[in-house]
Amino acid sequence: MHFADALTQATKEKSPVCVGLDPQLSKLPASLPKTSEGVDTFCRGIIDAVKDIACSVKPQMAYFEVLGWKGMKVFFDVCAYAKEQGLLVIADGKRNDIGSTCEAYADAYLGKGSPVDALTVSPYLGSDGINPFIKRCTENEKGIFVLVKTSNPSSGELQDLPVGDEVVHEHMAQLVESWGMHQIGQESNLSCVGAVVGATYPEEMKYLRTLMPHIPILIPGYGTQGGKAEDVARGFIPDGTGAIVVAARSIIFASGKDDWQEAAKEAAGTMAKEIQTALLK
Amino acid sequence: MHFADALTQATKEKSPVCVGLDPQLSKLPASLPKTSEGVDTFCRGIIDAVKDIACSVKPQMAYFEVLGWKGMKVFFDVCAYAKEQGLLVIADGKRNDIGSTCEAYADAYLGKGSPVDALTVSPYLGSDGINPFIKRCTENEKGIFVLVKTSNPSSGELQDLPVGDEVVHEHMAQLVESWGMHQIGQESNLSCVGAVVGATYPEEMKYLRTLMPHIPILIPGYGTQGGKAEDVARGFIPDGTGAIVVAARSIIFASGKDDWQEAAKEAAGTMAKEIQTALLK
Repeated sequence: MHFADALTQATKEKSPVCVGLDPQLSKLPASLPKTSEGVDTFCRGIIDAVKDIACSVKPQMAYFEVLGWKGMKVFFDVCAYAKEQGLLVIADGKRNDIGSTCEAYADAYLGKGSPVDALTVSPYLGSDGINPFIKRCTENEKGIFVLVKTSNPSSGELQDLPVGDEVVHEHMAQLVESWGMHQIGQESNLSCVGAVVGATYPEEMKYLRTLMPHIPILIPGYGTQGGKAEDVARGFIPDGTGAIVVAARSIIFASGKDDWQEAAKEAAGTMAKEIQTALLK
Repeated sequence: MHFADALTQATKEKSPVCVGLDPQLSKLPASLPKTSEGVDTFCRGIIDAVKDIACSVKPQMAYFEVLGWKGMKVFFDVCAYAKEQGLLVIADGKRNDIGSTCEAYADAYLGKGSPVDALTVSPYLGSDGINPFIKRCTENEKGIFVLVKTSNPSSGELQDLPVGDEVVHEHMAQLVESWGMHQIGQESNLSCVGAVVGATYPEEMKYLRTLMPHIPILIPGYGTQGGKAEDVARGFIPDGTGAIVVAARSIIFASGKDDWQEAAKEAAGTMAKEIQTALLK
């Protein structure tokens, strides 16, 4: 199934909640070893806890890479487990390169049979760094999410620079819409090319939604970073689809004690309700 | 030793040639297996061939990641071997993220004891995505190279957008100079924060060198992509240091037959002489 159709279906059946898997060793529950094995157990435990609530998980590759090649083995194992449990898997790697190197990244994560459904990508290189990913998305029913306006305080240093009558991230949004417009899913009317727009910039979110009518938006920055349900609601299209909202620490480290799975499930459920309520307003 | 001091010393002792390790499976010499073991053998063979000519190698992470966790094991093994053979190691991963995730990338590649000396990073996120890397560089005598003006045809889509009286990549160059100015090596007078500027844009190179007086420049795009010795010479400072020049395919796949090591050595030697001649003009 086309990635955007699968994402829309999962959003309708469960919720637009995407659980960020950021398994920072120092924050793992005390009962788990601070090793790649501990990360594996933790991620599987979170997946089990949230699989009936969340549409997707977003493993953050840095926390696996920092454990060396053993961490990368756990990364692929965890992605495969999430997929088995019916979750869509968005690898947050922010990869970017050109030509045959970009193709290698695309093959690494968006190849046929990869447990990853979509990959985040960074757009500084222009379309040479995007088109090889889109080719694989089209061939293998995968997706990408291109950074447009990120949630962090310094995102404006580059992304808000004025370019004529607009700013860089608005220009980028129009590029993303143009990159995605020929890759539209029949059910969702959305592209396999998505965008990342932070929950912490609600005014920008509202305008970016209008600039990218066919683009699914991945919204980080909910919870710990300060984004609220009424902020993220602006990223959705009127039927309540077209966006997914990420929370990581506020869900996966909701307790930090022996009840970490129950606490994660409860936090994900609360978040799903908050967003649902905001969308009905 | 401070990374820029080490790089400058290696450049003077050997040459500014940086050999790109892009071990694309389909291009490996026929005598090698098309597996992670073949990649390991190939990269070690290239390192042996060029270690007396090149100052550094630049393994391109995508070609290791596409082989899964086994490829990542080979990546770390190859980096360690290059370091043992007296080469500086620049991991081309174009990583980028913020906060504790950025710290995890920094720990993954620029931690104490890592065989990697420097990492390429992508700047779309602003200083939140750079400062955690710089902190590790300062603590562990490592370096980063920030994408400023890349060698590919579509680099201008974002990097050449007009911002007031300048363009995005010029603005980025000034940010890079400001990020690097407190991290200067005593011997080289250069920062541990470097920049990537493609050989394919010689006019821009000349101006960017003046905007970044303390920034070592990593110059891709030599050879196969069209950059010439007189183009890259513009990235150096007057004493013939301050830049390194990457070639990958034109060196590592110079022959493709059984004499691939001799051919790589010869290609690297020719390139070193071409650049030396251009610098003396």
